[in-house]
Amino acid sequence: MALSTARAAIDDSEFDRDTSVAARADEPGVYDAELSEGWTIGSAVNGGYLLAVAARALRAWLPHPDPLTITAHYLTPATAGPAVIRTQTVRVGRTMSTGQAFLLQRAEDGTEVERLRVLAGHSALDALPDDVRTSARPPLMPAYDACVGRESAPEGAPFVGSTAIMDRLDLRLDPATAGWAVGAPSGAGVIRGWLGLADGRDHDPLSLLLAVDALPPTAFDLGLQGWTPTLELTVHLRCRPAPGPVRVSLTTRNLAGGLLEEDAEVWDSADRLVAQSRQLARAPRG
Amino acid sequence: MALSTARAAIDDSEFDRDTSVAARADEPGVYDAELSEGWTIGSAVNGGYLLAVAARALRAWLPHPDPLTITAHYLTPATAGPAVIRTQTVRVGRTMSTGQAFLLQRAEDGTEVERLRVLAGHSALDALPDDVRTSARPPLMPAYDACVGRESAPEGAPFVGSTAIMDRLDLRLDPATAGWAVGAPSGAGVIRGWLGLADGRDHDPLSLLLAVDALPPTAFDLGLQGWTPTLELTVHLRCRPAPGPVRVSLTTRNLAGGLLEEDAEVWDSADRLVAQSRQLARAPRG
Repeated sequence: MALSTARAAIDDSEFDRDTSVAARADEPGVYDAELSEGWTIGSAVNGGYLLAVAARALRAWLPHPDPLTITAHYLTPATAGPAVIRTQTVRVGRTMSTGQAFLLQRAEDGTEVERLRVLAGHSALDALPDDVRTSARPPLMPAYDACVGRESAPEGAPFVGSTAIMDRLDLRLDPATAGWAVGAPSGAGVIRGWLGLADGRDHDPLSLLLAVDALPPTAFDLGLQGWTPTLELTVHLRCRPAPGPVRVSLTTRNLAGGLLEEDAEVWDSADRLVAQSRQLARAPRG
Repeated sequence: MALSTARAAIDDSEFDRDTSVAARADEPGVYDAELSEGWTIGSAVNGGYLLAVAARALRAWLPHPDPLTITAHYLTPATAGPAVIRTQTVRVGRTMSTGQAFLLQRAEDGTEVERLRVLAGHSALDALPDDVRTSARPPLMPAYDACVGRESAPEGAPFVGSTAIMDRLDLRLDPATAGWAVGAPSGAGVIRGWLGLADGRDHDPLSLLLAVDALPPTAFDLGLQGWTPTLELTVHLRCRPAPGPVRVSLTTRNLAGGLLEEDAEVWDSADRLVAQSRQLARAPRG
């Protein structure tokens, strides 16, 4: 039995440290970051984690803290190590600002290579009116305790044991969407799970950017082998999440032309639809 | 009975003329356009039309012609009249390029004011592999002839008669989603219709950008009065559309906090899911 440890707090956790940015005093709008090896899947730095780093810089730069709508185009593969985020103001309004972020890393020859190009509309989630007329319903799925974590995964199951990011997530999958791990994908292109952070930190708006891209890909449930590199990811953040793990539901319905879309919905413990996203990804060869 | 006229062709139609851009010989990457009064809704220039103008400039500038994924942030209201589109290359790859477009207009004091900020990943739709494993199905809706056009709309019905854009569209709504026009919104937040262009031009990738934003807003079907200004729109174009009107299905499921998302699916006559989009819009007061 593990020694009980205090749960990490928002702003003082692995995720916060690994997404932190440092402003350059002499270059307003320019931030340094250290991309952590801890959020990799195989050799790839997780796309949601990268987006959260860029959003952290935009939060520091823009007058409004939270992305309402944020789009990233993934240009070249990021690597663990130093990165610079250059931000730009597009427009400042009373309740909303628009900005861009350019996340770059130095190549071996010393030139800066852009990894992500980001465009975002920021506001203050806590200042939004409190009307809720959401007609969508949370996904039907078993309770957290009835979902399966990595300790249940068979030897050699893809994704689950072989990636650093899994050490940082508290992920439990709906067994109905985990058949691929035992060679029996459902074919529906759906993945559902409960997602928390391993150190116990509750979610906040920035960790929701990770949450939409942190589950196994729907491609596994479609019986495809191999990764689905994200070309573009757009996330809407609609509400500050309540404490506790969130429920994430991924769906792919349009696998065609060597591409697929993957839609994510994130529901918090108060049954609010706190985030919605869609990404366009390259389909794997398999 | 109307005199029969030849149907307009792709590249020689109202839509093509009104979205055309002229390259500035002395300023590579800069294009002039004239935003037409013909694509307005009330006093607002239609957002999908604006996106198509920006995409036309990106098509001219980038080595790849078709947006696979394109995001626009709507910053200030555009007006009919001259506009300039400044394009930028973000990255050029073998099968895909990424670029940005900035659509600006001159204010009365002569300064340039940005209307749209666009980020797009372009490719060649005709060069995509031809596998189709789409699990989504076309919307269940009546045939074109059983859907209702503006001639069926009652006096004073919102949207239908009062906007210039309606003269340029061949729009027929599923009666099940047109109750709002007679004071009986379904409350489901769904709008479905057949959409062609009034001059008979078939759709192409650029007119699909119009198509995702050309139907009455789901807000009407939710019983809300007033417009839902688009903050951000992201469109995935997945296939060149086959000839004939497309079926467009709009859905809103997350009206909350003074905002709503509106999802669009566009299906062509070959039953392909040719475009998918999501926009974030401000909810009306009503």
